[in-house]
Amino acid sequence: MLRVGLLGAGRIGYVHAKAIAGHTGSTLVALADVNAEAASKLAAHYGAEVRTSEAVLADTSIDAVLIATSTDTHSDLIERATAAGKAVLCEKPVDLSLARAQACQKVAAKNGKPVMIGFNRRFDPNFAALKAAADKGEIGKTELLSVTSFDPAPPPVSYIKVSGGLFRDMMIHDFDMAMWIMGAVPDRVTAVGSSIVDPAIGAAGDVDTAVVTLHFGDGRIAVIKNSRRAVYGYDQRVELLGSEGLLQAQNMLENTVVKSTMAGVTGAKPTYFFLERYMPAYEAEWDAFVQAVTKGAALPVTLTDGINALALAEAATRSARTGEGVAITKDMLGG
Amino acid sequence: MLRVGLLGAGRIGYVHAKAIAGHTGSTLVALADVNAEAASKLAAHYGAEVRTSEAVLADTSIDAVLIATSTDTHSDLIERATAAGKAVLCEKPVDLSLARAQACQKVAAKNGKPVMIGFNRRFDPNFAALKAAADKGEIGKTELLSVTSFDPAPPPVSYIKVSGGLFRDMMIHDFDMAMWIMGAVPDRVTAVGSSIVDPAIGAAGDVDTAVVTLHFGDGRIAVIKNSRRAVYGYDQRVELLGSEGLLQAQNMLENTVVKSTMAGVTGAKPTYFFLERYMPAYEAEWDAFVQAVTKGAALPVTLTDGINALALAEAATRSARTGEGVAITKDMLGG
Amino acid sequence: MLRVGLLGAGRIGYVHAKAIAGHTGSTLVALADVNAEAASKLAAHYGAEVRTSEAVLADTSIDAVLIATSTDTHSDLIERATAAGKAVLCEKPVDLSLARAQACQKVAAKNGKPVMIGFNRRFDPNFAALKAAADKGEIGKTELLSVTSFDPAPPPVSYIKVSGGLFRDMMIHDFDMAMWIMGAVPDRVTAVGSSIVDPAIGAAGDVDTAVVTLHFGDGRIAVIKNSRRAVYGYDQRVELLGSEGLLQAQNMLENTVVKSTMAGVTGAKPTYFFLERYMPAYEAEWDAFVQAVTKGAALPVTLTDGINALALAEAATRSARTGEGVAITKDMLGG
Amino acid sequence: MLRVGLLGAGRIGYVHAKAIAGHTGSTLVALADVNAEAASKLAAHYGAEVRTSEAVLADTSIDAVLIATSTDTHSDLIERATAAGKAVLCEKPVDLSLARAQACQKVAAKNGKPVMIGFNRRFDPNFAALKAAADKGEIGKTELLSVTSFDPAPPPVSYIKVSGGLFRDMMIHDFDMAMWIMGAVPDRVTAVGSSIVDPAIGAAGDVDTAVVTLHFGDGRIAVIKNSRRAVYGYDQRVELLGSEGLLQAQNMLENTVVKSTMAGVTGAKPTYFFLERYMPAYEAEWDAFVQAVTKGAALPVTLTDGINALALAEAATRSARTGEGVAITKDMLGG
Repeated sequence: MLRVGLLGAGRIGYVHAKAIAGHTGSTLVALADVNAEAASKLAAHYGAEVRTSEAVLADTSIDAVLIATSTDTHSDLIERATAAGKAVLCEKPVDLSLARAQACQKVAAKNGKPVMIGFNRRFDPNFAALKAAADKGEIGKTELLSVTSFDPAPPPVSYIKVSGGLFRDMMIHDFDMAMWIMGAVPDRVTAVGSSIVDPAIGAAGDVDTAVVTLHFGDGRIAVIKNSRRAVYGYDQRVELLGSEGLLQAQNMLENTVVKSTMAGVTGAKPTYFFLERYMPAYEAEWDAFVQAVTKGAALPVTLTDGINALALAEAATRSARTGEGVAITKDMLGG
Repeated sequence: MLRVGLLGAGRIGYVHAKAIAGHTGSTLVALADVNAEAASKLAAHYGAEVRTSEAVLADTSIDAVLIATSTDTHSDLIERATAAGKAVLCEKPVDLSLARAQACQKVAAKNGKPVMIGFNRRFDPNFAALKAAADKGEIGKTELLSVTSFDPAPPPVSYIKVSGGLFRDMMIHDFDMAMWIMGAVPDRVTAVGSSIVDPAIGAAGDVDTAVVTLHFGDGRIAVIKNSRRAVYGYDQRVELLGSEGLLQAQNMLENTVVKSTMAGVTGAKPTYFFLERYMPAYEAEWDAFVQAVTKGAALPVTLTDGINALALAEAATRSARTGEGVAITKDMLGG
Repeated sequence: MLRVGLLGAGRIGYVHAKAIAGHTGSTLVALADVNAEAASKLAAHYGAEVRTSEAVLADTSIDAVLIATSTDTHSDLIERATAAGKAVLCEKPVDLSLARAQACQKVAAKNGKPVMIGFNRRFDPNFAALKAAADKGEIGKTELLSVTSFDPAPPPVSYIKVSGGLFRDMMIHDFDMAMWIMGAVPDRVTAVGSSIVDPAIGAAGDVDTAVVTLHFGDGRIAVIKNSRRAVYGYDQRVELLGSEGLLQAQNMLENTVVKSTMAGVTGAKPTYFFLERYMPAYEAEWDAFVQAVTKGAALPVTLTDGINALALAEAATRSARTGEGVAITKDMLGG
Repeated sequence: MLRVGLLGAGRIGYVHAKAIAGHTGSTLVALADVNAEAASKLAAHYGAEVRTSEAVLADTSIDAVLIATSTDTHSDLIERATAAGKAVLCEKPVDLSLARAQACQKVAAKNGKPVMIGFNRRFDPNFAALKAAADKGEIGKTELLSVTSFDPAPPPVSYIKVSGGLFRDMMIHDFDMAMWIMGAVPDRVTAVGSSIVDPAIGAAGDVDTAVVTLHFGDGRIAVIKNSRRAVYGYDQRVELLGSEGLLQAQNMLENTVVKSTMAGVTGAKPTYFFLERYMPAYEAEWDAFVQAVTKGAALPVTLTDGINALALAEAATRSARTGEGVAITKDMLGG
């Protein structure tokens, strides 16, 4: 039984608490949050203790910590948790600063404890089935990947301002998705972005709509489309063209009911947002972490993966500003 | 907290144990099964005690029992459990004998405890959404209902022999579905059946493929198709034509991946069988029972519903033999 | 070049005129209709002459006639046209009277000229592809067929009164479809019908909603659903369950555009009615007739097929009245 | 009746000959091709005369010419045909050289005869329905457009070598599609391309897989994906995100049959190539030309549209080489 401490009791902390408590191989022992009320409420729900994060890390009976705090604390907490001998599952992104994330990796490596980054979408059964089919060669040699990822509605501008921008905050999932499916790191990133959903987002220096093209050394190409607003729900699709066919992972729908009237043939919308769409993925992600940590197996998502996604985000941010493709070089990547 | 005893630790007992244990408002206290090993294993998994059914019923700390034993024991257990002051959720069918089920209802009524019958499909989110849309008048006045219900593979002939036949064992779900959606009991049942999937089923005196037409007093019609074998998976669809449109509840698929190759465009199969398709429905069914029992609200599925479905099954069995439509009369129905 | 006379310049006559004139192997020479204005207009459009039907039949330069007149004239015109040495393509149904149709077949046989009946749906590319897949064994042994056939709106009651009733006028297409796909004539017909779309149809002695079950000698079953009204368009679907899978021919849609908004995900409706849906089928039907007649090959649809469908319609009409299954005997069928 | 001369009797010439001959408002009078045999065969089929292109242009009884010759002759023939007083429908692209196309437009303008460019896809009923829905505001303000356009198989390398490259030869359709749907000319073009389908294409200096992003002055973005090979058929899809929803035009399929077996649920492939997919579009395009020319109405596709698409192709070609976005300036566009 893996004894777990949870750092962060916000929206994503709730998701992880549910996965930890629902898993037969783990127990939620304690949790910490700067918001005492949120911490108490969540702790009560799962019979866990509320502590400071220092106390969580100091408790030698705790085997692993899940870091779901604000991004600016991630690197620091990864370093301290691994120093305290804990296995770590940390939410994305590792950091807003690529250099800081790289430094963190060096410390974590020295501490010698496993660190996994929470790219939950890899554990979605649809994307996992697409990846498995591609890896089995069902569409031959892969050539052109398309990732569509639209949120239902933009977050508050106050969040945008501290988010690191669309490429680091939102598209980072898709950068990881692209490198995971293609099994490689691109050599060039070309980004086009603009603020047309909400002028306040543009005024805050960010974009809300963007297209990024990744070029791989062997000539393969991936294109990622992001929008902060799709009023019909969370639009999460992947499409992969290969020499012998096409694979598509389509949206999950709220239900299978179809209504035909004089107005047309209408089906249900995609599930509303990440809680609805990805709860099974969060559970599978946690299970993968538990399996790896308790059996000493390789982690399915590494700190290097987290840093590489951040490197692409940084390159895309630069490309969107300059209008030029940005080369991805070794020094930008994880160790 | 509703304290629950489970009678029956077979395949369907496992499903219910999971729902009972997973519900925040109920605890699985004890369970009984003639198969001691099955009982022990399931009890251990959920920290429940193994007892005889007599002991379960005699325990005054137990509020409710879930009856998931073999069909021939249902009526007897409903009578004894309600006599012992328990609320009851009993698996379908109530009984293989309509007369016995009607007698049971009289006893249960005298005992005054709520009895709900386990027509789980009413709680499937897809069928529930279809029913809600129809009730809201989204397709006007309903006229013609079609229910497709195919199992992936036939059960062993040994099971067929004691099952009461396809109409009582399998189509009983669809009879309830039809009466629930149409909000009425039909006045005539016309059945055509044959054994073409497996001659051994025919040799056992049963059919494996059948079409039943229900005629309602106001002229509306429902048609139900059953087959014991659909090699592509559990095929569970409903289609309802009304004066202003059509509603269809389509199959749940294993995932959303679609592959296009020279061989065609291929998607995932329907979820394999009732455990995959209906686990959320079993959970919602249990929740509805807990809500009704703890709040004294009306049960969403009654013993009368169970008897009415059985009456249609009996009529269909007769119609399939004689080739004539069978009238449904008051004396055949629940009280 | 097949020289063709067209008898009947009503709605369906227009459809056939277009197919005849558009075919590179046939010319529309002359046409006749009791409505002189309709005849003139259609003739002018295709550069054909207007004549009496007598004159058309008497013209020895005409090789073939297409009979698209009112049903009560079909048998008579088939007899006269074959006597005049013409090959015949006659619209369905052969006649409203089974006995009359059988008598007509004897005369036509004596006259020795080919007579094809216009079951156009066999030539629809979707149904043809389904049939071809089934015949190739792609779903193993066929077991259970479902035909859904809903018109967008009921015809005027004046038409209903002379139509011979839903089973002879509308479901006759589906009877032929079922026998064609199953490759056999059923041994028993069970029908349930009612008038719920429009009480005036019931007052005229007809039904507007019906379900008919066909039982075949080898145990296979087919079920046909008809409604005179589906406000969302012409609903024409076929579904065939076999020992190794399911085949479905779905509706043709007006276009492939899908719109996702807060209100749901909406696609186009089915094509509106038979002109939109089946124009390619009418062209393929005519081509099949031309090929058969000019090459002396076997006709793809025979007078026997037309009589057999009529026999099922007659049996269904009786079954719907009595509530009993009606056996199909040899004497009811084509020769 | 519009009297028409056809220049070019190759594959696309055949398509146009069929549309011209099948239209009730036009006659195919004469045709010319450097390949005498192709010309004779096509002329015989439609009862047209074979002539030199000089003779076609010199015939004052001919009202319009359709130019379907090789691209290097287009500008010259447009100039000569308009000088000879003919209305012109010319296949895309106008020219491989932007400067030459711009010079051609000046001459055509002086000659004062209408010139339409054959961007047939605008006339596809699916894309036309998407455009109409967007123009009606059904998805609010448009924001992000995606065009997927994959050919089933690459053309011979000999063709690639004279084609002007993927951007001018293939993506030119999509450039026009994007500007037509967005109703604007972009201000920046960013292209990423590579040769991974066939190394011989790369050796010939061209790409076979490409992603191009168009940035519009108001912040809207369009992304176009091209591949020379999609083994499952002609993949032609458009997707448009707006402030109130998403519109998708999906592929046309060969038929509507779906097969469910143990291997999955398989539907038909997209129609194979442009002849199957776009024949109705070519007919609608020709009809639009005839209507405009005979009624003196505005042409639905102009020479300016043709030049603008060519300008984007030229910019994309440059961007793919340099890795930098290329600004679209006034001097690159049509007059």
